[in-house]
Amino acid sequence: MFFASDNAGPVHPEVLEAIARANDGYAMPYGADAASQRVQAKIREIFEAPDAMVHLVATGTAANSIALACLSQPYETVFCSAVAHILEDECSAPEFYSGGGKLTIVPCDVDKMNPHDLRSVIAKEGTRGVHGPQRGAVSITQVAEKGSVHSLDELQDLVDVAKEFDLPVHLDGARFGNALVALGCTPAQMSWKLGIDAVSFGGTKNGLMGVEAVIFFDPAKSWEFELRRKRGAHLFSKSRFLAAQMEAYLSDDLWLTSASKANANMARLANGLRAIEGAEFLCEPEANLVFAKLPRAAHKRLQTGGAVYYLMDELEGGDDNDLLLSRLVCDWSVSDAQIDQFIALATG
Amino acid sequence: MFFASDNAGPVHPEVLEAIARANDGYAMPYGADAASQRVQAKIREIFEAPDAMVHLVATGTAANSIALACLSQPYETVFCSAVAHILEDECSAPEFYSGGGKLTIVPCDVDKMNPHDLRSVIAKEGTRGVHGPQRGAVSITQVAEKGSVHSLDELQDLVDVAKEFDLPVHLDGARFGNALVALGCTPAQMSWKLGIDAVSFGGTKNGLMGVEAVIFFDPAKSWEFELRRKRGAHLFSKSRFLAAQMEAYLSDDLWLTSASKANANMARLANGLRAIEGAEFLCEPEANLVFAKLPRAAHKRLQTGGAVYYLMDELEGGDDNDLLLSRLVCDWSVSDAQIDQFIALATG
Amino acid sequence: MFFASDNAGPVHPEVLEAIARANDGYAMPYGADAASQRVQAKIREIFEAPDAMVHLVATGTAANSIALACLSQPYETVFCSAVAHILEDECSAPEFYSGGGKLTIVPCDVDKMNPHDLRSVIAKEGTRGVHGPQRGAVSITQVAEKGSVHSLDELQDLVDVAKEFDLPVHLDGARFGNALVALGCTPAQMSWKLGIDAVSFGGTKNGLMGVEAVIFFDPAKSWEFELRRKRGAHLFSKSRFLAAQMEAYLSDDLWLTSASKANANMARLANGLRAIEGAEFLCEPEANLVFAKLPRAAHKRLQTGGAVYYLMDELEGGDDNDLLLSRLVCDWSVSDAQIDQFIALATG
Amino acid sequence: MFFASDNAGPVHPEVLEAIARANDGYAMPYGADAASQRVQAKIREIFEAPDAMVHLVATGTAANSIALACLSQPYETVFCSAVAHILEDECSAPEFYSGGGKLTIVPCDVDKMNPHDLRSVIAKEGTRGVHGPQRGAVSITQVAEKGSVHSLDELQDLVDVAKEFDLPVHLDGARFGNALVALGCTPAQMSWKLGIDAVSFGGTKNGLMGVEAVIFFDPAKSWEFELRRKRGAHLFSKSRFLAAQMEAYLSDDLWLTSASKANANMARLANGLRAIEGAEFLCEPEANLVFAKLPRAAHKRLQTGGAVYYLMDELEGGDDNDLLLSRLVCDWSVSDAQIDQFIALATG
Repeated sequence: MFFASDNAGPVHPEVLEAIARANDGYAMPYGADAASQRVQAKIREIFEAPDAMVHLVATGTAANSIALACLSQPYETVFCSAVAHILEDECSAPEFYSGGGKLTIVPCDVDKMNPHDLRSVIAKEGTRGVHGPQRGAVSITQVAEKGSVHSLDELQDLVDVAKEFDLPVHLDGARFGNALVALGCTPAQMSWKLGIDAVSFGGTKNGLMGVEAVIFFDPAKSWEFELRRKRGAHLFSKSRFLAAQMEAYLSDDLWLTSASKANANMARLANGLRAIEGAEFLCEPEANLVFAKLPRAAHKRLQTGGAVYYLMDELEGGDDNDLLLSRLVCDWSVSDAQIDQFIALATG
Repeated sequence: MFFASDNAGPVHPEVLEAIARANDGYAMPYGADAASQRVQAKIREIFEAPDAMVHLVATGTAANSIALACLSQPYETVFCSAVAHILEDECSAPEFYSGGGKLTIVPCDVDKMNPHDLRSVIAKEGTRGVHGPQRGAVSITQVAEKGSVHSLDELQDLVDVAKEFDLPVHLDGARFGNALVALGCTPAQMSWKLGIDAVSFGGTKNGLMGVEAVIFFDPAKSWEFELRRKRGAHLFSKSRFLAAQMEAYLSDDLWLTSASKANANMARLANGLRAIEGAEFLCEPEANLVFAKLPRAAHKRLQTGGAVYYLMDELEGGDDNDLLLSRLVCDWSVSDAQIDQFIALATG
Repeated sequence: MFFASDNAGPVHPEVLEAIARANDGYAMPYGADAASQRVQAKIREIFEAPDAMVHLVATGTAANSIALACLSQPYETVFCSAVAHILEDECSAPEFYSGGGKLTIVPCDVDKMNPHDLRSVIAKEGTRGVHGPQRGAVSITQVAEKGSVHSLDELQDLVDVAKEFDLPVHLDGARFGNALVALGCTPAQMSWKLGIDAVSFGGTKNGLMGVEAVIFFDPAKSWEFELRRKRGAHLFSKSRFLAAQMEAYLSDDLWLTSASKANANMARLANGLRAIEGAEFLCEPEANLVFAKLPRAAHKRLQTGGAVYYLMDELEGGDDNDLLLSRLVCDWSVSDAQIDQFIALATG
Repeated sequence: MFFASDNAGPVHPEVLEAIARANDGYAMPYGADAASQRVQAKIREIFEAPDAMVHLVATGTAANSIALACLSQPYETVFCSAVAHILEDECSAPEFYSGGGKLTIVPCDVDKMNPHDLRSVIAKEGTRGVHGPQRGAVSITQVAEKGSVHSLDELQDLVDVAKEFDLPVHLDGARFGNALVALGCTPAQMSWKLGIDAVSFGGTKNGLMGVEAVIFFDPAKSWEFELRRKRGAHLFSKSRFLAAQMEAYLSDDLWLTSASKANANMARLANGLRAIEGAEFLCEPEANLVFAKLPRAAHKRLQTGGAVYYLMDELEGGDDNDLLLSRLVCDWSVSDAQIDQFIALATG
């Protein structure tokens, strides 16, 4: 019963098979392999973006940091929510990659910025002339960090604010597929049609071993990305094995099938937990993760029963009815039996 | 007939199998998996270094740059040869990771620094007080970039110079295994027993998909490495798949067997090429690569015959007897038949 | 009537004379002049700190940024108030000098952090292991940005919190003198006796042309400061003219006399403004600056009458009784007549 | 007898007077003062460049490093001579300001690059694609570091090579005035008419207390410079005192008169030294500095006699006729009597 992270799940068998197939003698290194080219073509097709440039990296932090370094200058500041992964969980990688840039925190409602706050924070950052950092890119996380999925209208509103100030927009799509199937829209609708300039298109949390694609809809930044990726030490010699993973991911809609399964797993889990008296969710799970407050007694049963997940509050002490915060994540691989066992333990 | 790079060869089947075996349900992410721990224990054992700290990354540039950033300050300069990979082939990654540090070039005989030049260059860098960069780490590449293998005495002499100035020493061991079997010594003899402080212990060029280990013999820098790796975006969530590769590599001496095979392949190739009238090597191949000058006519036959390798000079024009420089690399996977076919084409 | 900034006032005549006296033929450059040595001795004496190391720079931002770069690592974060100069007014200089470090905002009551918030913010930053930045230095501004002066007890409480976490403490003392005379304590009492590790000791706002001293009470960081100052391009060849200014500043208590005069000027101004119906101060001025809310009508008279100061709200529109926020600063050079003229205009 | 550096000489009395005159009450800080605007207008006039943007800083290293950071990207490399000040004497400030960029050394004949070497070094840096740094700006020092003055033709040849590769050109003109009067040309002829994009226009070595101007002939980079200057902590609050110095420098041709005097002083000195048997100059002094090899006996007399200058070789030991290398610099303030005394001591 592993609900700690979609970072910790298995690699999809079809992806492993693709890796094995790619292990076919020699291939030109450093992205000059044929599979890397096919991946770019496939992503252009899926995103209906014939000019998009696609670059593969192995971690989400690399995708975000290098993309943002291309979109912003060191004397600018990137706007993101108070719980953004780039702010909280990357050990200042964006500041490092930008050469000493800055992140400006936009208050958020659970995990979503709202356009009003975004506008006022951006406006305020621009009032000190040379003394303050200049306004840089806006970064939005979709699926957001606490499990919310921005609607297309919500995304459009945020992008529109950025464009009022003529700022580029980055989408941290570590769970892009999960958001997409939750919204039932096309990749183009959730990206460049809104005005988004660059996407971190995640794969690792959805069945890959370690591959994310950075997509620039305007190819102008592409060569800069290549250089920043290389000097960040993220250009792989045996890049064909990254490409093979991503190619398998995009084939036969594997990425969408896996994301749908992960979301359905979370829905099943949430439905079960909702029955527990007092149970609360920080926000309704729309994709594949939820922050759930459950009674201490439920957590005790879960932990004793071998469930693995993040518990933010102290298990020991206090009253059995106290609500303790936990993070629960489902990937595509969780079985109904595991989910039901978890619910059974939680329900008691 | 692929002799372009050991970066471009296949993954060893045993390594692929280990990856598949590691795909067993869930594992804690970010290096908290059991295999990562086992790898550290195994490397400590192999290096006879019970306190060594071992960190896995996916590229050689990451290994070198992050290790050097831990060993040097931004106001220091790293000493390396004029053909060092960190100088020539990493798009200033060491300068980026160190926060704007510098590399100082030490002249080299083909591809090896000699202690006399190293001493005089180090001495000279320290004469401008606050106006010049301060003396930082010394980085030595073993196998060196043109195919030389430093003898233990040669390494000792270079380390001794560094220690005269109380400087740390880094070994870029992207082909550590190839050097080791060429010298017939132990890992300890080729590292900490000489006074080397940190090793980039390569695996990718010798049968892995993309894993290198950084080994610090003094554990004091280990936590700093973890932080610099994370903010460099090189901490993998599904780190177990890096660990699995390295574990397979170290099991049953796979790394040594593969390196021996690669070296033997190169010896067979070099022996064949030596028979060509006029053929010259920049230096005698002791490991698995050689820079060979062959007559233009030989290169024409090779290229027409489908051999893939780096040719540094222009194929067209000139006389058929002109010697053109090429780089030839063998990994463990090259077959005798391929080598013999290459020789046959070259010999004409 | 210039109340916009103590950055904009004249150089004290005694300082100009000292510069002229220093213009006596040749002097060794880059801090090797005799006056630089005398300044260090004098500051050691004034601070009762015989081992302190003193370094001169020409701007407050240089003092703060280079000092903090010596006290923190790029993978750490510096804790400061939400209105700190280093956060708001230095165009990310601290992030630049640290090599991509970070500032973490501590909420403040007007302009002072309180120990409770500082503790909880520091505690929270340390809970994400390698994923978040590590805890770095605490930076306190004294006089704070809105005009408050921390009492010695308040400073001690903040320093104590830092020391609970074993963190170094930096004091941004751009107005160190003004705070000192407000508190009536000794320099030692307001610095190392509290546990403060480094002070930006300001002179520019108090009658110098452009000199600040960075004081490290522990000499261990001194050479690193020299190197970071040099590569920051802040080592002056004709450093004797910086030293001459600082020497004049410290002679015959000029710095204290000037600071006292500036504070007295502000007290006279504040007393006058207090008489205006509705007038409010963000906090009681204890040193030489105040953020004053005055009726729109008062601002209209002031602006028409030629008073120069920062008005944060829109002058036009609205009601004449609306309170508009302004920043008023007095340096040592403001005359009673100017102050009284300002008050007269404001009072109407 | 001070011949160690033009960095160590006095401030010209007219400059001191200008500083005193500028100390007239209040002035808007941070470059918003009137004198800063007048300086820009004056430099535009002198350079016949009506669109040029002029920025003042206080050190030559700041001028060079911030200008180069505006002209190059962190993944590029700046081409400069093997003895360039930016390479040898700025503690990696250019690497720091560029965010981890690089300098590539071009061999030089004493202290001048030649177009052939420059072309071949630039060409070679561009052959490794994403693996090597990209070609960045070319930086030329005029007066060069050992005392040579490039002729206009020599400069043109170097600029032309840069333009073949479409690279920007920076002129480190710490001794711009000295070169100009040596060549007898106009500022425009020695800068933008050749194709030079940015000039570090020195004042400190020629009678200022500490001011250099950076001139961009294309205003596009100007705002970026302002931001990089601010975050480098080089924006002075009391900027009027920098402007006042530069204004005095440019008034009544003070800068040209001073430079002419300095050059004449050097000519007198060199003429005297030429009479010494065995005396050699690294290159003929055309401006105000020379590297002179003089017999040990001469140095002994000079040192005993109180002459101050840099001696690169060991004074003690060896033969009295051995030639020891020394650096001799004259600024505008050296008297004929001092020069003659120096010559007398050297001659013996």
